[in-house]
Amino acid sequence: MITIDGTKEENLHFKWSPDLRPIAYVRDGDEVRVIIPDSSTMQIKPGMTTEDLAKLSSSKFDAAVGPIYVEGAEPGDALAIDILDIQVGDWGWSAILSFIGLLKGRFRDLLVHWRISNGYAETMGEFLRGIRVPVRPFLGVIGVAPRDGVFGMIPPQYFGGNMDNRLHGVGARVYLPVSVRGALLSLADPHASQGDGEVTGTAIETNATVKIRVNVVKGLNIRRPFTVAPVRDEPTDVIATMGISNDLYQAARDALEDMLSILGKLYGLTPEEGYVLSSVVGNLRISEIVDEPNYVVTLTIPRNILERRKN
Amino acid sequence: MITIDGTKEENLHFKWSPDLRPIAYVRDGDEVRVIIPDSSTMQIKPGMTTEDLAKLSSSKFDAAVGPIYVEGAEPGDALAIDILDIQVGDWGWSAILSFIGLLKGRFRDLLVHWRISNGYAETMGEFLRGIRVPVRPFLGVIGVAPRDGVFGMIPPQYFGGNMDNRLHGVGARVYLPVSVRGALLSLADPHASQGDGEVTGTAIETNATVKIRVNVVKGLNIRRPFTVAPVRDEPTDVIATMGISNDLYQAARDALEDMLSILGKLYGLTPEEGYVLSSVVGNLRISEIVDEPNYVVTLTIPRNILERRKN
Repeated sequence: MITIDGTKEENLHFKWSPDLRPIAYVRDGDEVRVIIPDSSTMQIKPGMTTEDLAKLSSSKFDAAVGPIYVEGAEPGDALAIDILDIQVGDWGWSAILSFIGLLKGRFRDLLVHWRISNGYAETMGEFLRGIRVPVRPFLGVIGVAPRDGVFGMIPPQYFGGNMDNRLHGVGARVYLPVSVRGALLSLADPHASQGDGEVTGTAIETNATVKIRVNVVKGLNIRRPFTVAPVRDEPTDVIATMGISNDLYQAARDALEDMLSILGKLYGLTPEEGYVLSSVVGNLRISEIVDEPNYVVTLTIPRNILERRKN
Repeated sequence: MITIDGTKEENLHFKWSPDLRPIAYVRDGDEVRVIIPDSSTMQIKPGMTTEDLAKLSSSKFDAAVGPIYVEGAEPGDALAIDILDIQVGDWGWSAILSFIGLLKGRFRDLLVHWRISNGYAETMGEFLRGIRVPVRPFLGVIGVAPRDGVFGMIPPQYFGGNMDNRLHGVGARVYLPVSVRGALLSLADPHASQGDGEVTGTAIETNATVKIRVNVVKGLNIRRPFTVAPVRDEPTDVIATMGISNDLYQAARDALEDMLSILGKLYGLTPEEGYVLSSVVGNLRISEIVDEPNYVVTLTIPRNILERRKN
């Protein structure tokens, strides 16, 4: 099995393009080990403070490891990526940042550090004290080359990329539409835990060593990615807030604002704590999208992880 | 315990208003049994055909049982409704209708009958043959009177109503903001199963006998409903399609279109079968709402219920 080391700059790229030079070649059915840096591309380190964020180079964020050329993959085929293993690091970070997030501009910048061990993440310090977040690792970025054009790394596109889909963990098979010969597969952005929505714009960001199997499915002709994946959430009571609006984005914002308020009333969390917690374990569901003119977006937080914070 | 019989027309209403006359009076902590008709208000019956839909009176759809006056509930309080039991009928219906749905106008009208027994629903006939849907009953409509104004029954509002939130099943505690003295609680729209989204606009619509406990929470001052509820989905692999767009509504439509295509390719379902199945068991999740300009909406279908239809 080959190993690709994404901590080396020559194995990273900062744009999606059909013209990138492959850093490795694999065959249908091959297993590959990929060492993937966190989404700051190793700029954020343990011990850094919120003030240090201003010194970082934004152009060095969000690198992807690749591209990997897959022999026999042709336009019209699909690449089916089996995610066999994800070993995350023992440290991670989350942040509230001015330029991203469902409540962009509402809070000051903040950097939070997480200690990851024995399947749980806990913050260091008073912020979210008493909250243990189960580790549910997945890949935020998995994608292939576009048909044409050059695309930035943040927005996901028809060829995948930064989908931030929490279903893309171990046991998932992610199908991607091949647009160019060799497909040009790339991986990035390991998350130790994230809810559906990633409302602050950051999950528990960490590095990881990932094992995948690469398969070519001839002639599947898909327009966008799809996935077959296990849902691993344990049964628990949830706290659910509901935004109700004729605009789904506004409904999601309202559900989040209500959650910050409820978590404050019931568990004494600050709004910033509620915002970060919602990003790393809160799931946004569209409860109904048909009862016009108003739709319902529900945000759920598992109640068991709040038990040690009961007011 | 009092019983309110919603099969009697004098116990139904077709508008939300602070001026409705209560049909019953209860106290803080009282348990109430409510007999609730299906959302067609008993107009759709076993054996009816798609052609019969045109003969129904649309003004008689979507009645709610109530309103129930709750002693001691004042503006600024919340009503907390514990859903203690839901006994659904042995028959239900789903429909594709021209005037509602995420793919409104795409398909011809269709009425589907379901037999409900031993915790599962199965259609009668060839449509969705071999698919068994686990019964996960909940109340589509739960609401109180508005502060002022008169509202129709279809769109949900800040005071609740037709939220179609599948979390509102047995074990849920639904908090509603009280706007008028006595709160004026109403219930309606039992569903035997529905996914997050209710994409056709109908679930497995059925009648039910429901037992609730009514609680007054003084001075909670909430703006919209929120809920504490168990999530009862069993762990299973899911098939997940992803819409990727700068508009969440369009992303949801694209995820649904992709699902109809994938269910056809993998399991031989017709698009109409995929559409109805997505409405009764498919969940719409907002996977990310921050990677601007593109958001990801994921539609998931549990794979185990498709096993007997494998192509």
